[in-house]
Amino acid sequence: MKRIGILTSGGDCAGLNAAMRSIFYRAKKYGMEVVGIKDGTLGLIQRPVNSIELNYEIVSGSLFREGGTFLGTTNKGDPFHFKGEDGKYSDVSDKIIEGYKLLKLDGLIVIGGDGSMKIFKKLADKGKLNMVAIPKTIDNDVGATENSIGFNTAVSVATEALDNLQATAASHRRAMILQVMGRDAGHIALNTGIAGGADVILIPELPYTIDGIIKKLNEMKKHNIHHSLIVVAEAVKTEQGETYMIHYADGEKRLGGIGDYLAEQIMKKSDIECRVTTLGHVQRGARPTANDRILASAFGVHAVDLLARGKFNRMVAWQNRHVVDVAIDEAVNTYKVVDQNEGLVDTAFALGIYIGTT
Amino acid sequence: MKRIGILTSGGDCAGLNAAMRSIFYRAKKYGMEVVGIKDGTLGLIQRPVNSIELNYEIVSGSLFREGGTFLGTTNKGDPFHFKGEDGKYSDVSDKIIEGYKLLKLDGLIVIGGDGSMKIFKKLADKGKLNMVAIPKTIDNDVGATENSIGFNTAVSVATEALDNLQATAASHRRAMILQVMGRDAGHIALNTGIAGGADVILIPELPYTIDGIIKKLNEMKKHNIHHSLIVVAEAVKTEQGETYMIHYADGEKRLGGIGDYLAEQIMKKSDIECRVTTLGHVQRGARPTANDRILASAFGVHAVDLLARGKFNRMVAWQNRHVVDVAIDEAVNTYKVVDQNEGLVDTAFALGIYIGTT
Amino acid sequence: MKRIGILTSGGDCAGLNAAMRSIFYRAKKYGMEVVGIKDGTLGLIQRPVNSIELNYEIVSGSLFREGGTFLGTTNKGDPFHFKGEDGKYSDVSDKIIEGYKLLKLDGLIVIGGDGSMKIFKKLADKGKLNMVAIPKTIDNDVGATENSIGFNTAVSVATEALDNLQATAASHRRAMILQVMGRDAGHIALNTGIAGGADVILIPELPYTIDGIIKKLNEMKKHNIHHSLIVVAEAVKTEQGETYMIHYADGEKRLGGIGDYLAEQIMKKSDIECRVTTLGHVQRGARPTANDRILASAFGVHAVDLLARGKFNRMVAWQNRHVVDVAIDEAVNTYKVVDQNEGLVDTAFALGIYIGTT
Amino acid sequence: MKRIGILTSGGDCAGLNAAMRSIFYRAKKYGMEVVGIKDGTLGLIQRPVNSIELNYEIVSGSLFREGGTFLGTTNKGDPFHFKGEDGKYSDVSDKIIEGYKLLKLDGLIVIGGDGSMKIFKKLADKGKLNMVAIPKTIDNDVGATENSIGFNTAVSVATEALDNLQATAASHRRAMILQVMGRDAGHIALNTGIAGGADVILIPELPYTIDGIIKKLNEMKKHNIHHSLIVVAEAVKTEQGETYMIHYADGEKRLGGIGDYLAEQIMKKSDIECRVTTLGHVQRGARPTANDRILASAFGVHAVDLLARGKFNRMVAWQNRHVVDVAIDEAVNTYKVVDQNEGLVDTAFALGIYIGTT
Repeated sequence: MKRIGILTSGGDCAGLNAAMRSIFYRAKKYGMEVVGIKDGTLGLIQRPVNSIELNYEIVSGSLFREGGTFLGTTNKGDPFHFKGEDGKYSDVSDKIIEGYKLLKLDGLIVIGGDGSMKIFKKLADKGKLNMVAIPKTIDNDVGATENSIGFNTAVSVATEALDNLQATAASHRRAMILQVMGRDAGHIALNTGIAGGADVILIPELPYTIDGIIKKLNEMKKHNIHHSLIVVAEAVKTEQGETYMIHYADGEKRLGGIGDYLAEQIMKKSDIECRVTTLGHVQRGARPTANDRILASAFGVHAVDLLARGKFNRMVAWQNRHVVDVAIDEAVNTYKVVDQNEGLVDTAFALGIYIGTT
Repeated sequence: MKRIGILTSGGDCAGLNAAMRSIFYRAKKYGMEVVGIKDGTLGLIQRPVNSIELNYEIVSGSLFREGGTFLGTTNKGDPFHFKGEDGKYSDVSDKIIEGYKLLKLDGLIVIGGDGSMKIFKKLADKGKLNMVAIPKTIDNDVGATENSIGFNTAVSVATEALDNLQATAASHRRAMILQVMGRDAGHIALNTGIAGGADVILIPELPYTIDGIIKKLNEMKKHNIHHSLIVVAEAVKTEQGETYMIHYADGEKRLGGIGDYLAEQIMKKSDIECRVTTLGHVQRGARPTANDRILASAFGVHAVDLLARGKFNRMVAWQNRHVVDVAIDEAVNTYKVVDQNEGLVDTAFALGIYIGTT
Repeated sequence: MKRIGILTSGGDCAGLNAAMRSIFYRAKKYGMEVVGIKDGTLGLIQRPVNSIELNYEIVSGSLFREGGTFLGTTNKGDPFHFKGEDGKYSDVSDKIIEGYKLLKLDGLIVIGGDGSMKIFKKLADKGKLNMVAIPKTIDNDVGATENSIGFNTAVSVATEALDNLQATAASHRRAMILQVMGRDAGHIALNTGIAGGADVILIPELPYTIDGIIKKLNEMKKHNIHHSLIVVAEAVKTEQGETYMIHYADGEKRLGGIGDYLAEQIMKKSDIECRVTTLGHVQRGARPTANDRILASAFGVHAVDLLARGKFNRMVAWQNRHVVDVAIDEAVNTYKVVDQNEGLVDTAFALGIYIGTT
Repeated sequence: MKRIGILTSGGDCAGLNAAMRSIFYRAKKYGMEVVGIKDGTLGLIQRPVNSIELNYEIVSGSLFREGGTFLGTTNKGDPFHFKGEDGKYSDVSDKIIEGYKLLKLDGLIVIGGDGSMKIFKKLADKGKLNMVAIPKTIDNDVGATENSIGFNTAVSVATEALDNLQATAASHRRAMILQVMGRDAGHIALNTGIAGGADVILIPELPYTIDGIIKKLNEMKKHNIHHSLIVVAEAVKTEQGETYMIHYADGEKRLGGIGDYLAEQIMKKSDIECRVTTLGHVQRGARPTANDRILASAFGVHAVDLLARGKFNRMVAWQNRHVVDVAIDEAVNTYKVVDQNEGLVDTAFALGIYIGTT
């Protein structure tokens, strides 16, 4: 293994640069060259291949402390269904495989979420690429690993937002609703809610009722607490189980707006004044927390070690405070939602937080 | 002047607790008693009057470092047009004046925005109350003072949000649009835009065109910069000068959503991918910056000094790095928007930021 | 179990208020009364006992987001060797046991480090007190638990300090040395060093040489990196294994100053310019990180559950991502240092960080 | 003016990169080329001259949000008394002037403190260089300007440190002493002290007594406040007016340690427990505050405008909320200390803070 490539794929998050720095330093211990591929799959499709040789000056300094990915990324790069400049879709997977070979790579480290990993597993199988993956996602929904890069920072940003909202809630005796990210899983909402002192946490995994929420808020009033914090994951549906859709500027409908739905319903059925904050992209680009940098560093080391030992199609994972590795298939086949029996759900119940199911 | 009251009125912001602590310490130097009135005007309407005697233990400690107001506030408390529990409006101004007298106050310090100051000026005139005011507003739109409490913190929070968005913008080669607060004035947007490195700043005071924005973004592409940051004040109107309205949960229409309008228009007329973040209430409740705490401390001292010297109906103000005082009428009659000739507008132009007018 | 007491003991850290809030909410689920005892053991020695009945208003709001402990604490309160106002030492353990009874407590939750736990175990045995403990320490050196309250925040603060120092190091081409806390264990240094991108990490558990440090810094120069970051735990000794003592203002000698020793030695033996920062108490009092608040919340719930189930002399602990409980004796008999075989030491080696042993 | 150079000189601080970005964008408006000179004067002494042509890709992105200076700086570069590699001192000013000419510069912008400005004024006079200066210093002691780049961020960092220390002070009923930077001026201490809620502020401009400090702390005890915060500038002398010297690792004695002196004296003369934190270099390298970035942006624009208009030997300055320019001689001849009559000193007195003079 003389020369390896790295790329980031899918939505950006905090800690990607830290992973790349770790990969570089580890690879240098083996005497490997490291090539950074630009813009996820897009860099491998372009000709000449869009890439950069990494060196000490690039990875040292403040880079690894920064959010985002200095290599660029994309979430529009599915090569099996790739939208060309003419607007038509085609299969460009051969081009990617060719790109890998043009770069004379012996191995490739993909830092991505479950979508990216599925794509690259297919590419690796088809092109006989030597690939390992590092899980990253603010949603923490990648299977087979307890933590993915970016999650801890997203929780940290959302918790700080809740701290700010608490001051306003108390000053105005309102319910402040914070809608956080989390595609189809409630991890950000659950962790933020407990860390930020929420009174109500709604996650897609547990059913809720508007009446249940109002009952909780009324109980608080009995204790002379007239303000409250509600955290809701963007994937939560209406009481009737429907998706509350909002129409985005690019013409597509996407998940979202459930915060507005809740405010509307609570204010209709009670005298509680609500305000909604949709946190959005600021959860992604923050400076990584210490935890995310440590995780990224440990993952980067292990990913290079896997390549060096000729173990391919593996994803590094965090289990019981150690870095291990699992078959990529195992990871991508198990979307990780909040388990009703996990400790934090119990903690939420125990603290009297309304988290649904009633 | 033996006994003074303080209250906070209108939307909460950072630095209110610091102002109250300063008032307390200064009043103690004069041997005054200090009464904190709860929930703005509401505390004076309730019977018994809802208030708390301030003491050293309350104001010491971490209180003054916190956002919000520990006294509570309201922006629903216009006593000349007060919505009772029966939903009907009436004039309860006499009740407030009575409340002031029931508390046996010799003077009152109102910490509020221009709306609150107008109301209290009317009350003071009617009831012969001894009143001075301290300006607070995240929008910095109170006339006759360069700075109001809460503005610097709002800019600081919004700048940090822009820092986060920059990482995502660069990683994905997108335009990230940040919609910030600022009722009818662009101060937050202008300051945040320059501090946060925006490429486009839109404020209600300066006309703009969608073509002007796109032209700027295309010029950046010539220099191989494919991402950008756009800051827009919530009060900005559409290109045609119309208010882009959104329907809030409580059934009222309010200013807002202009960020979504911009994304829609830019994506329709160009191939630039946009994402919108509406920062919302997190701009209010953050811990106050050092600047806001210093301002609040200086304001608090001067307000008590005014009462002690029998100078009423004055608002403390910040001018040329000094605390001064002006007639409240002067302040409330001059809503302070961004002056096209002020230095920061020049700085924006000089840096090549698109800030409209073309 | 009708009425329980809580107290904090030993050095303050972030997350104590969050633990107390969790205890209160959980206790209320059981219908228990909760008494907060002031200033650690001191409150139980005073007559009347210095305590406060906790209620919803006290624990709601911003309290749990704050560093420190609103109950107060002490690290001078060993009741078996207590320094009276006359300067003489005596055994006041009976007084504490009496204090517990005067408060009519059915159980007591002690939030403390290993020193505090040893003391309270002895007290519980002697006085037949029903006691459970929650581990807190920025040093993370309490045995039998992977994490203690306060550690994650201390690492977060120290990592941010390293971020600041990196800018200065790079600007001036210097080695910046950061001396962090960590009584006899290197956990803070190890975690901060990896999270903050240190080139050298020195912990008391692993021997080092000045030559080893200089060799590492010279290797970096070959790659054109002329600045570096060095993190050292305050407990690290000189190359000869001696304690580098400094004389504190109160006349006692304490651990410390090893950062100055390193700078002195490196500058004597090389042409590398060094500057030292001793981070000190700012590691303690910061707002707790999301992680510390979640940990404190989970610990608080479990501690009350133990009392409710009549399981005493237990310490709650964090193992494999779950809250468990262990015998206090087990915890206090195993001081937890950095294990040379733990994953982060491997990560440090793998990244080429100089962490001693050569 | 076709081609201009920029360099940073003296100690690093926050906002330098923001100034460079502003200079670049403004220069591009005039069609100028911009050369960044490395490591202050050192880059002009090296052959070939150590410099880099600035372009859009370098200055865009996250660079300007970062602390430090990406060009590097030095505070060992006095060319009239330059220490060579052989350890001997010589005058290398001709070499610098030659360097300026080798780069074919038409003008030069120096971002530095008063020391750097004195040196460059001499160089400009000798070599007929076209030079303008931008003031930067965390100490805010440059004359003729109200603010210099880096000061606001230093105050912000120190205020946050005081916030952390407050939690520990209150938890342990201690006096926490924070020693902040500030060569011979007390600006950081004065601003931090008011912003951070200090009870005692000691600055070199105002005499104090240990008895005065203790009297203040004892008065607080009467109000049942048993903890306190003391901020002291590193330049403060002992009660007897002597410099409390500490011996640094590089063999030189420097200002400092006054915090330790205070703790020693207070603990000797009272029963108040003190702890000292010396904040050190973390005040320099933080991310710049919004204020510092705005100031740096406005300064950068004006500096380029001066060069473009052929106005040399000027320093940009901040006066009455506007950027102006003054003769460099005016600035360097007036070291700016805290004026006893300035507003913040009055505010400190008014709040009952002990700030000396008694």
